[in-house]
Amino acid sequence: MSDKPAAFATADEAEAAFYAAFAAIDLAAMGAVWLDSAGVVCVHPGGGLLRGRAEVMQSWAEILTGVSPPSIEHRLIERLAAGDQEVHVVEESIRAGGDAQAAPNRVLATNVYRLGPDGWRMLVHHASLPLMIKRREPDSGRQLH
Amino acid sequence: MSDKPAAFATADEAEAAFYAAFAAIDLAAMGAVWLDSAGVVCVHPGGGLLRGRAEVMQSWAEILTGVSPPSIEHRLIERLAAGDQEVHVVEESIRAGGDAQAAPNRVLATNVYRLGPDGWRMLVHHASLPLMIKRREPDSGRQLH
Repeated sequence: MSDKPAAFATADEAEAAFYAAFAAIDLAAMGAVWLDSAGVVCVHPGGGLLRGRAEVMQSWAEILTGVSPPSIEHRLIERLAAGDQEVHVVEESIRAGGDAQAAPNRVLATNVYRLGPDGWRMLVHHASLPLMIKRREPDSGRQLH
Repeated sequence: MSDKPAAFATADEAEAAFYAAFAAIDLAAMGAVWLDSAGVVCVHPGGGLLRGRAEVMQSWAEILTGVSPPSIEHRLIERLAAGDQEVHVVEESIRAGGDAQAAPNRVLATNVYRLGPDGWRMLVHHASLPLMIKRREPDSGRQLH
């Protein structure tokens, strides 16, 4: 666990720190990446809406506790920069710890960063897992959207 | 089908037009909402990465063709405004056409809008469906992230 203060000079640095904290299952480092705001939003793959720093960090505590460090790679697909806000669409490749043989999960994430007095921090992480199986569809019609 | 030119004065107007086009299964109106750019990104719930206007509009053609108009409501959860870029985290409530009895699908979406010479347009739509069923987990470990 790291408790050194972080001040990320760019959104890319904050993003690198986010994935490094995830890969190191380092909750303190993860906490340093997120903005301290009631407005932060996190959606894990297949998960519901998490809002506010307390709820978001509670979810990370559950995800990062009691597991082996996963292997994570991330690739920037699209960067949308606008002054003190950057949106990154990212493809994540995640392999659970101790699961080196398995094919990685490919996750798509939209990450939003904001530049504040303490540097760039994460404000939104919305991740989804492209389903490899077809969802069950109601008899009455096609699955829309 | 509508082919009148659209110029949205706010990101909210573009968002309203996006959901109106979806509900009206109006592909031309949907096309007027999206930025004409190779950089647009769309992820449908459970779907893979779609990039560039052609690929994104092809997916909407498939979604909007040959179905009954769905019922769609959307609720803004969080607005992140930064000059000519706005990020909206939205909860969508979608009921397939002719399926008025069914419980709606609750979809979480992160939408990004950009102000250009033709007004506000959509640049990113990343949607995910909170799973009501537990994903099958590998024997070797917990589902991470």
